[in-house]
Amino acid sequence: MIKSKTNDSPVVVGILGGGQLAKMLALEAYRLGLNVAVIEKGESPAGELTKFDFPKGWMDNDELDKFIEVSDIITLENEFIDTAILDYISQKKPVFPSSATMKKVQDKFKQKQIFSQYGIDVPAFSEIYSHKDAAAFGEKHGYPFLLKTRTLGYDGYGNFTVRSEGDIDAAFKNFTINGNLRPLLAEQFISFTKELAVMVCRNQTGETEVYPCVETIQKNHICHTVIAPAVIDESITRKAKKIALRCVEAIDGVGVFGIELFLKASGEVLVNEIAPRPHNSGHYTIEACHTSQYENALRAVLDLPLGSAEMKVPAAVMVNLLGVRDGSGLPTEISEMLKNNTAKLHLYGKKLSRNGRKMGHITAVGKTQAEALEIATKAANDLTW
Amino acid sequence: MIKSKTNDSPVVVGILGGGQLAKMLALEAYRLGLNVAVIEKGESPAGELTKFDFPKGWMDNDELDKFIEVSDIITLENEFIDTAILDYISQKKPVFPSSATMKKVQDKFKQKQIFSQYGIDVPAFSEIYSHKDAAAFGEKHGYPFLLKTRTLGYDGYGNFTVRSEGDIDAAFKNFTINGNLRPLLAEQFISFTKELAVMVCRNQTGETEVYPCVETIQKNHICHTVIAPAVIDESITRKAKKIALRCVEAIDGVGVFGIELFLKASGEVLVNEIAPRPHNSGHYTIEACHTSQYENALRAVLDLPLGSAEMKVPAAVMVNLLGVRDGSGLPTEISEMLKNNTAKLHLYGKKLSRNGRKMGHITAVGKTQAEALEIATKAANDLTW
Repeated sequence: MIKSKTNDSPVVVGILGGGQLAKMLALEAYRLGLNVAVIEKGESPAGELTKFDFPKGWMDNDELDKFIEVSDIITLENEFIDTAILDYISQKKPVFPSSATMKKVQDKFKQKQIFSQYGIDVPAFSEIYSHKDAAAFGEKHGYPFLLKTRTLGYDGYGNFTVRSEGDIDAAFKNFTINGNLRPLLAEQFISFTKELAVMVCRNQTGETEVYPCVETIQKNHICHTVIAPAVIDESITRKAKKIALRCVEAIDGVGVFGIELFLKASGEVLVNEIAPRPHNSGHYTIEACHTSQYENALRAVLDLPLGSAEMKVPAAVMVNLLGVRDGSGLPTEISEMLKNNTAKLHLYGKKLSRNGRKMGHITAVGKTQAEALEIATKAANDLTW
Repeated sequence: MIKSKTNDSPVVVGILGGGQLAKMLALEAYRLGLNVAVIEKGESPAGELTKFDFPKGWMDNDELDKFIEVSDIITLENEFIDTAILDYISQKKPVFPSSATMKKVQDKFKQKQIFSQYGIDVPAFSEIYSHKDAAAFGEKHGYPFLLKTRTLGYDGYGNFTVRSEGDIDAAFKNFTINGNLRPLLAEQFISFTKELAVMVCRNQTGETEVYPCVETIQKNHICHTVIAPAVIDESITRKAKKIALRCVEAIDGVGVFGIELFLKASGEVLVNEIAPRPHNSGHYTIEACHTSQYENALRAVLDLPLGSAEMKVPAAVMVNLLGVRDGSGLPTEISEMLKNNTAKLHLYGKKLSRNGRKMGHITAVGKTQAEALEIATKAANDLTW
């Protein structure tokens, strides 16, 4: 599908959300000759670059209806949208990933249950409703363990590390809103040697493409560096890719999905979680793969044949540019950074920076991971904010 | 320069023209966190993707003023803009390439004069005002030779091959408007073994980056296939790149420039002409080079350090998608083409197709030029219009 069914214009891909993932989706859509609509409250990086910009956001019913009207097919850039809204949209226009898929992943407890039932290894986990539940989990699986909100957590927000039974009350306090404890999930703490990630793309027909297995390095629970491909045994790579593909099948996913994994010293690979959208760990695919995660996300939701997920260069490294201050979303000076002349700068165009906010990223390719890492890291350090 | 001098917003790069070159410039601008304004009469591929769209075109004074007002710096995607307009703009905002540079290249006779005076080899050429002038040129340099309009020619429009003195009257008739003969230029016909092209980028400071030397294959005077790098002796590559760089210096060019060259069997390299803008022969740089011609064009006009023009893959081939009918600007079916899963499809989003019109292109990368050529050619053939 490239032409709209209703007229001779290009298909309009509606995107729920207007952040950097939506922006990078939009840029790839334009290359393919598609058009995009963006719904996001306020001015947004992706809304900037289309006339079909719906800045009142999807909580405004009229705005949502207008957005649905101009869109031929709808996808999303974040997993925090109420599935009731997806159900409403899907009565009028196709939405991928589907509401059914989103219901399976939004609640991290359900997500883990489904993976577990599907025979996919995940860290031990349990629903938590009380101090007693939490203490019992700690007793059984040991300290530290993680308490997480079942919904709406990202980049470490909504996570609490419980180091001993004495931490439980503090954690609960942290997760209590207006006197009500949010639905929680306890997760065994995994002592991993590496965190890995695999992007998987699956179209409506069920055709799949699995991207290389990468290593992700977090700082303060936020993805900081991605090394592609991960420097691991070929057998681990095969296992990780197989598990990632099974995760997407388990939730009948259509679109692109980021699967975060823990690699243990034993060689065991456990699923941490799945993101039902383009993922920070897949930014490198723009420069390094035949088909970026963004283009394949579009192909998948439009039920087009998928492009090759293979790398066209030996190695690539992505480094996130995280906000280091409150203020303008633009760096003060980029000249020094640009002198790293093979590094590729992406700035998202967010109006405001704040500490830890994802403001952009840098990708470098190279003959080896070490070479790419050196270029990307130096370039990131050479930006002045 | 990344921030506007007048406020805390991203720099707005104004683009004169809204075709595919402007669109690809805009896409790279957005990746860098810049914003774009587009002025072009009517709906245009680049105008689609910005709110700063000025569809009345630059011949409308008010529209032009509004465009200048929102832009921090202005560049262009075609060489056919009246330099009086560039002079007008440059009183208010910086414009690159400059009006002075454009004056040197717009008139192909002057362009060749300048190159010739600068010691750059060009085919023999002469101003032509009469049948007698043309016949004398044929006498001196032999038949066939080319008659060209000094201005406004592209893709073979404005060219006439004079095979014998008997053709001169027909050529003149072709170039006469309302009883007036257009200013003409005669050019010696060069029997070449290959046509080559080199993109050169030069910023305000005078820093330069020279892209690989590529082979361009024309069909009916329109660029059809580009092979990167050209399969030629290393000594020819060095010579071609050196000549291309000298051409840009000769016209004091700031921006990105496409230099078209003839390679003779003797190894001699002659300059055909220069395009003062991103060029069809440089599309491949998006997928194949560390920095695309579009990104470097932006860096050059913003006086930022230039990115590496080196290829990050061994070989790449670009095939143009030329219109084969009158009608919709969109292909009927792209699925078969997309099954060529390492080929990269670019569709420009032009509303209407016509015979020979550039509607899009396909780039393939590969271990060898032959591999990339096979992939790109098959993919282009697999599109249905």
